[in-house]
Amino acid sequence: MAKNLTTREEDYSKWYNELVIKADLAENSGVRGCMVIKPYGYAIWEMMQAELDRMFKETGHQNAYFPLFIPKSYFSKEANHVDGFAKECAVVTHYRLKNDEDGNIIVDPDAKLEEELIVRPTSETIIWDTYRKWIQSYRDLPLLINQWANVVRWEMRTRLFLRTSEFLWQEGHTAHATKIEAIEEAEQMMNVYAEFVENHMAVPVVKGIKTESERFAGALETYCIEALMQDGKALQAGTSHFLGQNFAKAFDVKFNTKEGTQEYVWATSWGVSTRLMGALVMTHSDDNGLVLPPKLAPHQVVIIPIYRNDEQFDAVSEVAKNLMKELRAKGLRVKFDDRDTQKPGWKFNEYELKGVPVRIAIGPKDIENGTFEVARRDTLTKEILSKEIIVDHIQTLMEEIQTNLFDKAEEYRKQHITQVDTYKEFKEVLKNKGGFISAHWDGTSETEERIKNETKATIRCIPLNMEKVVGTCVFSGKPSEGRVLFAKAY
Amino acid sequence: MAKNLTTREEDYSKWYNELVIKADLAENSGVRGCMVIKPYGYAIWEMMQAELDRMFKETGHQNAYFPLFIPKSYFSKEANHVDGFAKECAVVTHYRLKNDEDGNIIVDPDAKLEEELIVRPTSETIIWDTYRKWIQSYRDLPLLINQWANVVRWEMRTRLFLRTSEFLWQEGHTAHATKIEAIEEAEQMMNVYAEFVENHMAVPVVKGIKTESERFAGALETYCIEALMQDGKALQAGTSHFLGQNFAKAFDVKFNTKEGTQEYVWATSWGVSTRLMGALVMTHSDDNGLVLPPKLAPHQVVIIPIYRNDEQFDAVSEVAKNLMKELRAKGLRVKFDDRDTQKPGWKFNEYELKGVPVRIAIGPKDIENGTFEVARRDTLTKEILSKEIIVDHIQTLMEEIQTNLFDKAEEYRKQHITQVDTYKEFKEVLKNKGGFISAHWDGTSETEERIKNETKATIRCIPLNMEKVVGTCVFSGKPSEGRVLFAKAY
Repeated sequence: MAKNLTTREEDYSKWYNELVIKADLAENSGVRGCMVIKPYGYAIWEMMQAELDRMFKETGHQNAYFPLFIPKSYFSKEANHVDGFAKECAVVTHYRLKNDEDGNIIVDPDAKLEEELIVRPTSETIIWDTYRKWIQSYRDLPLLINQWANVVRWEMRTRLFLRTSEFLWQEGHTAHATKIEAIEEAEQMMNVYAEFVENHMAVPVVKGIKTESERFAGALETYCIEALMQDGKALQAGTSHFLGQNFAKAFDVKFNTKEGTQEYVWATSWGVSTRLMGALVMTHSDDNGLVLPPKLAPHQVVIIPIYRNDEQFDAVSEVAKNLMKELRAKGLRVKFDDRDTQKPGWKFNEYELKGVPVRIAIGPKDIENGTFEVARRDTLTKEILSKEIIVDHIQTLMEEIQTNLFDKAEEYRKQHITQVDTYKEFKEVLKNKGGFISAHWDGTSETEERIKNETKATIRCIPLNMEKVVGTCVFSGKPSEGRVLFAKAY
Repeated sequence: MAKNLTTREEDYSKWYNELVIKADLAENSGVRGCMVIKPYGYAIWEMMQAELDRMFKETGHQNAYFPLFIPKSYFSKEANHVDGFAKECAVVTHYRLKNDEDGNIIVDPDAKLEEELIVRPTSETIIWDTYRKWIQSYRDLPLLINQWANVVRWEMRTRLFLRTSEFLWQEGHTAHATKIEAIEEAEQMMNVYAEFVENHMAVPVVKGIKTESERFAGALETYCIEALMQDGKALQAGTSHFLGQNFAKAFDVKFNTKEGTQEYVWATSWGVSTRLMGALVMTHSDDNGLVLPPKLAPHQVVIIPIYRNDEQFDAVSEVAKNLMKELRAKGLRVKFDDRDTQKPGWKFNEYELKGVPVRIAIGPKDIENGTFEVARRDTLTKEILSKEIIVDHIQTLMEEIQTNLFDKAEEYRKQHITQVDTYKEFKEVLKNKGGFISAHWDGTSETEERIKNETKATIRCIPLNMEKVVGTCVFSGKPSEGRVLFAKAY
């Protein structure tokens, strides 16, 4: 399999687009802005889902399912929300097609909906309309619900996984008796996301809160995790919102307290999406193709037989199958590629492109010597290992590779968080180096907006785990309460 | 918890609607025809999904994801398909809302789509449009893909789970090099469905093929599994279609054979949906509420403490928690309901309503005697068991209950397959007894149609595992090649 990938150096954006398609993760469909997630890409997404779902349930959440469609009027109920979401969306206006006189299929003008339906861009409105029926008493709280679903936001410029009109995600929607409990929930879910992204995707993130202008439409506070891609651009990997009582008020969701009073319910919502696939690709992969962390690799190990004739194939296959069995018994996901339609070199390339963490080759020589050739995808190094230690070694390798990927990405990020104190420096770093820029900001949306217009850099977050030291805004010279992280972002 | 359920005798249909809502499975939403699947109902669906997904993967299938929207023109490409599906559907015509002069949200007339998009009622067209790019050579076949997704078919009269405008399902779409292989695949998936429905849902099914008029729009053969509900009506629980080369021709999907010729690809598709939830409810449940088979019960065992004071509560809790631990160690799903906001009687009712297979009550007397009170949901019987045998006994009970539910349903069905030889008898059985009617039919759509118009009974299937004996059509008196199963159906 010839790869012919554009290199990252040549054109990072083109490299990404090609890689996603060539590694069989996803492709564009015949429907503008909508992608097809191919089996290999979907297998990675399924593993992400399984782990996140486990973490959600461990923290007391249950899954449910709410309608795809939202009546137009629901959006008008929360004033900020409608501005943020109800604009670029898919609108269902009719419920029937028919044949015209020439036999062509047309929309039946008689089947017009009284009220248009919006294909959900996010589900706060329909869910809070439902919660009104579910919540009467403090006994019904907290209500901790998650939904795995598809959502649609009409996008003019789309990129596979990063920005598509339809995407897959999960959205948590919780209801609480007190403000403090809701804030704790929102923070907890930010932490769950950070743990997942760091431990499973091996992608280091900065935890922080969004500025007012970057906040979710309808939220009082948006918590986020921000990752850094290899081209120095940031990517928002997940958000968790403290919604206050905004949606409870908009949809009239009150509860009887223990004390016998009536109060509005406090809310959170939080989500991650197939966008994480884009973050995974852009953080670890190289000019040879995908690099997958073992915890999310559909195949952690691939075994490739080397042979010249049927006799050799049989001998090699036997050894390979035994090894596969032993490795699988240890819980590893192993594939033995015994297809005779492709040569070993083609297969080597293919699994490199697809980011399989470890490749094992077995030939007649290896059988003679009692050895295996083991290649690591992350370092592109090879070694010869004896059969006595192979199983233990592969197990150890899984942890080593997982750790190595995280460390590499963290080192890159460390090199790409630059502290600047002047606007000149700010622009230079942005232009020549990229990455996060840690700078003082006067706290106004006006300054934020002007910096954005001049440099395309936005405030990614006000980091949470950083000591706050006052200073002077790089742009306006006014007082600043602490540094924030700027970056160009996906 | 007071149940106040309508009985099946009084009004079966009302009983079903009430039960689905009161047992917290699902409810109607603010969007016409669309349901909310509540956490308890969704937990059952998740278990169905997990097992089906495992079976699909075991038979070599991979998951993928295709767009929600289908361009209108795609439907025109397969002539039969469009008649069956493109009529009652949700049509997206615009992609933006805006504020009018009065600040109201309206559909932006400038944002009209050039080509309308249909919210998928089923995905053959978009998938085969994709397969054209994926399939070039016999090496690319078979292509065995499944998708878990939501679909929309505009329905005027809806019922929770049984008929809703939006529902959840899985749809398999496979491509093969030969006709025989595709037929084998379609048959295999019918068998997979039958195995799942019988072994996990404990619902006996008849395997068969559909008559021409009941066939899937675009299929050459539709295989189905048909179940019988407690009111004597049949329910189609799953279908698997042999599509011939219809979609390959409509979307121009050809492959190079080993011999170097070019041929159209052979296809199947197959699906089951949240409708299965309706079948589950209607097969086993009774006037006290849900009855769930242990394999699909979110909680297989619930433990309820009986106490008068804190001291008793502490003592009972300790025993309960130890038992829970032991049972969980055996892989059982156990809940200990230690809420002090509800009385034991209320809890007994609640778990009866929710169909938990086994209820264990523990009070101070039980601790003294070293016993537990064990109640079975399926038989509504109770027994006192000593602590020495409790764990083994509960494990055995799970199998017993699973088997008992299947046997009961099978016995009911056996009593409700009636062989008739005259049309008079046919109508009498249909009116007085219901169930499947095994009758000779002349093989014409005309007779089928007339029987349907006169009696509302349709041919559910031509059963596969039945010896074919020729006879005379009950309606027309013309020759018949064998008996078929008629019934009124959901």
